[in-house]
Amino acid sequence: MTENSALLTDLYQLTMLQGYYEQGMEETAVFEFFVRKLPENRNYLVAAGLEQVLLYLQQLRFTPAEMAWLADSGRFKPAMLDRLSGLTFTGDVHAMPEGTLFFPNEPILRITAPLPEAQLVESRVINLLHFQTLIASKAARSVLVAPDKLLVDFGMRRAHGSEAALLAARASYLAGFAGSATVAAGMQFGIPIFGTMAHSFVQTHVSESRAFIDFAKANPDNVVLLIDTYDTEAAAQKVVDLAATLHAQGIKIKGVRLDSGDLADHARKVRAILDRGGLGETTIFASGNIDEFKLAELTAQHAPIDGFGIGTHMDTSADAPYLDCAYKLQEYAGIARRKRSEGKATWPGRKQVYRRYDDNGLLCGDTVTLEGTPCAGQTLLQLTMKDGKIFDRQPTLTEARDHALRQLNSLPAPLRQPAKAPPYPVNISAELHALAKIVDQRDTA
Amino acid sequence: MTENSALLTDLYQLTMLQGYYEQGMEETAVFEFFVRKLPENRNYLVAAGLEQVLLYLQQLRFTPAEMAWLADSGRFKPAMLDRLSGLTFTGDVHAMPEGTLFFPNEPILRITAPLPEAQLVESRVINLLHFQTLIASKAARSVLVAPDKLLVDFGMRRAHGSEAALLAARASYLAGFAGSATVAAGMQFGIPIFGTMAHSFVQTHVSESRAFIDFAKANPDNVVLLIDTYDTEAAAQKVVDLAATLHAQGIKIKGVRLDSGDLADHARKVRAILDRGGLGETTIFASGNIDEFKLAELTAQHAPIDGFGIGTHMDTSADAPYLDCAYKLQEYAGIARRKRSEGKATWPGRKQVYRRYDDNGLLCGDTVTLEGTPCAGQTLLQLTMKDGKIFDRQPTLTEARDHALRQLNSLPAPLRQPAKAPPYPVNISAELHALAKIVDQRDTA
Repeated sequence: MTENSALLTDLYQLTMLQGYYEQGMEETAVFEFFVRKLPENRNYLVAAGLEQVLLYLQQLRFTPAEMAWLADSGRFKPAMLDRLSGLTFTGDVHAMPEGTLFFPNEPILRITAPLPEAQLVESRVINLLHFQTLIASKAARSVLVAPDKLLVDFGMRRAHGSEAALLAARASYLAGFAGSATVAAGMQFGIPIFGTMAHSFVQTHVSESRAFIDFAKANPDNVVLLIDTYDTEAAAQKVVDLAATLHAQGIKIKGVRLDSGDLADHARKVRAILDRGGLGETTIFASGNIDEFKLAELTAQHAPIDGFGIGTHMDTSADAPYLDCAYKLQEYAGIARRKRSEGKATWPGRKQVYRRYDDNGLLCGDTVTLEGTPCAGQTLLQLTMKDGKIFDRQPTLTEARDHALRQLNSLPAPLRQPAKAPPYPVNISAELHALAKIVDQRDTA
Repeated sequence: MTENSALLTDLYQLTMLQGYYEQGMEETAVFEFFVRKLPENRNYLVAAGLEQVLLYLQQLRFTPAEMAWLADSGRFKPAMLDRLSGLTFTGDVHAMPEGTLFFPNEPILRITAPLPEAQLVESRVINLLHFQTLIASKAARSVLVAPDKLLVDFGMRRAHGSEAALLAARASYLAGFAGSATVAAGMQFGIPIFGTMAHSFVQTHVSESRAFIDFAKANPDNVVLLIDTYDTEAAAQKVVDLAATLHAQGIKIKGVRLDSGDLADHARKVRAILDRGGLGETTIFASGNIDEFKLAELTAQHAPIDGFGIGTHMDTSADAPYLDCAYKLQEYAGIARRKRSEGKATWPGRKQVYRRYDDNGLLCGDTVTLEGTPCAGQTLLQLTMKDGKIFDRQPTLTEARDHALRQLNSLPAPLRQPAKAPPYPVNISAELHALAKIVDQRDTA
C-alpha cells in the first residue's frame, strides 16, 4: 500500500460518490479544514502538513490493482467504477502557509473542486493536516521554552508507525527543532540528523572505557558518549581519563549524554567533573521522558544541559494526542451550507482569515469573515493549488521553518508559556453571523 | 520512502554499527522487547504487530539509492558502507503469537542474531510492535465492555499518518472489532469494511429526505442513513415516512446513524419513532467521541444502540498514547547482560514466559524465567523466524483474532473491567534474580 493510495479513505466517501455520480451532482463544492477548539494545554496551533496534502492531491488516482479490487468487492455499480478509474483532482486549494500560527474556527485550508473530488479526499487531507499540525504545535512549545538549546526529535520508536515517525521529524523541524535521529527523515526531507550510542553498545563491551574508546575511533567526528549505563558520575570520570589519549589521536570528545535519573542533579555533577578534567567544551545532552514541562523545570533550575533529545511525548503529542478538527462543506453549487448538529455547528460560506499586529509586531487579533468582504489585517489563506496543479513556487521546508520562527516570535508573552493563557481574540464577522442566520432559515423552511 | 526502508532507524544504530564492524564485534546478540509497566487505565496488554515485524526483517536491505545517500553523507567509512550494502537479517525470532495477552516485564519478542543486525532493527521493531500492541490493547477494552455490539474502527482521519490508520484497523480487528471504515485496510489485510454517509451528503441536497432517497437508490444493499445533520428526531420520522416508498422499490433501510448530542437519549427517542413506524428491524448505529468508558456508560443505561463507530480515542489510544516499552540487550557472545540505569534496570539473559490457568480455564499466574529452566505452565514464546526466514506457517489474521478472543475470555473478571484492577501476578523466577546478581557483581568488578 503506497502512502498516497486513493484507497486511503473512509468507505462512506465511496458510497456517497456513488450517489453523487448517479444524481449528476458534480458542481463545485467548497470544504474547509479547521480546529473546533484548542486542547487543554495549547494556546495556539502551528499549521503544518500542507506540502504533503498538495503532493497527495496532485498525484491522486486509482491504480489498476485498486480498481480491480473495488470491482471485485461487488459494492459499486459499473458507472461508478468507470468514473473512479478516470478520477483525478482538478480543484483549487487555498491555505495558510506552513508554519503560520492559527486558532479555533479559523480555516487553514480550503478546497474548491467538483463535489465528488472534494469529498473523496476528506479522510487523507484530515489525516495529513491533523497529524503534522498536532506535532508542530507540540514541538513549538519546547522551542519557546528552551530557545537556546539544541532540540532533537528522538521519537521514531514510539511514533505511531513509520509515516508518523517521518512526519513528526518534519513537523518538529518546521517548528524550530534542530533535527531528528530518524535517518530516513534526513534522506526524505533533508533534515539534519543526530545520533550517538545506546546502552547496548556499552553492555556488549568488556568495559565502559573500552566502549567509549571504540566508539570514538569509529566515529571520530561525532563523539557523544552515553554515560548512564551503570554509574553516571563514575562514567563521567572515565571520559575525563580517556580524553588525553583520544586527544593525542586527534579525537575530541564533543559531548556526553544522560538518559535516566535526576537529570539536573546528574548534569551539575557531570559538568563539575568535566570542567575539573579540562573538558569545559564537552557538552551535556539529555534525554528520557522530556517534554516542554520538564524542559521548563530544568531551565528554571539552570541545569547545565546544552541539548535535549525529545521523543515519545512529542511524537505522540502525549498530553493531547489529537485535535478536535474537521473538514466541512461550506458551499455547494454557489449556495452556502452549514450543519447544525449539537455541539458541532459550523460557520457557512467561503471564509478568509485576517490578522492584525500591534506596533511591536505582536499578534493582536484575527477576524474570520467571508472571502471578499473588506477587512483590516493580513490575509492568511493563499492560493496554493490551481486546477489540480501546485501553484507557483511553494516554500521550501527551511523557508517554512523560518516563517514558523518569525510567527512564534510574534506571539504575545502569555501565549508563549506552557501554561494555559486567556484565549487569543478571534472575531467572527457580522457578515458570517448574518449568513448563518439566512442559511438556517432556509434549511428549516 | 517505503514503509520498510532500512533507513527507518535511529542514526545511533548506524554509528554503533560502525564501531561493531570496526572491532569485529559480530557475535550473537540476544535482544528482547517488553513493556516496563502498564499505563494507568490498562490491566493487560494484547501482543500485536508480529506479522509486520517478520515481513520487515525478511526483506531488510539497503537499496542502491539509500547506499548512495549514506555515502554522500560523509559520516561513514568505506568498510562500513561495504558491509551495509550486503546486509540482510539472518537471525532467529521467538515471539508470543499475536493476540496473546501479556503483562509487564514479560518479553513478547526475542531476536537472536549477529550483533549489528540485531542492533540495526531496534527502532523499526519497536515502532511496529509498540503501535499495534497499543491499539489492540485499547480496542480489546471496548470489545470486553460491549461484546454483543457491532464495533467498527472509524479512526483513519485522526490516526497519526497513513500507516497508523492501516495498522490501527488491523490491530483493532485482531482484538475483536468487526471491521474498519478504512478502505485500504480492506484491500491490504482483508478486513471487513463499513461505511454510510457524511453530513455533507445531506447538506448538498435540497432536502434531507431527498438525500436519503438518493443515497438509498445509489447503495440499495447498504442503506444506513445519518440523521443528526439538522434535527435528529425529525429526521428519524422522515426515515419512517420514506420506508414504504423505498420498500416498494425493493430497498430496505438497514440502519440509521447518530453522531452528536446525548446518544442514549436520542437513541431511545429514535428507537421509539422507528418501532412505531414499523421499522423494528432498522438498527441504530452511533459514533462521535466513543471510547470504552462511554461505551460502558451507554451499556449501563441500556441505550438501544446496536453498533458503534469508534475512532479517534482508539486510533490514538488517547488516554494512554504510548507504552513504556523497550528492546534491550540480554546476552552477547554467550554472556548475559543488563543495564542498571536508574529506574530502567532490566532482567538479563534469554527468557521464557510460562502461563498457568485455573480449573475454569482462567489465567492465574505467569512466571518469567531463563529459557531452558523447568517451569510449570504453557510456554508463550515460540520460534517464528529461523535464519532470517519466516518459520513454518504463521497464523492468519483471522486465526490470530480467534486466539485473541479466546485469551480475552480467559481473563479473570476484575481484569476485564475498564477500571484499574489489582495487578495480575507475574513471578520473576529465582534463577533470574540469581543471574542478575552475578551480572552486577561482574560488571562492577
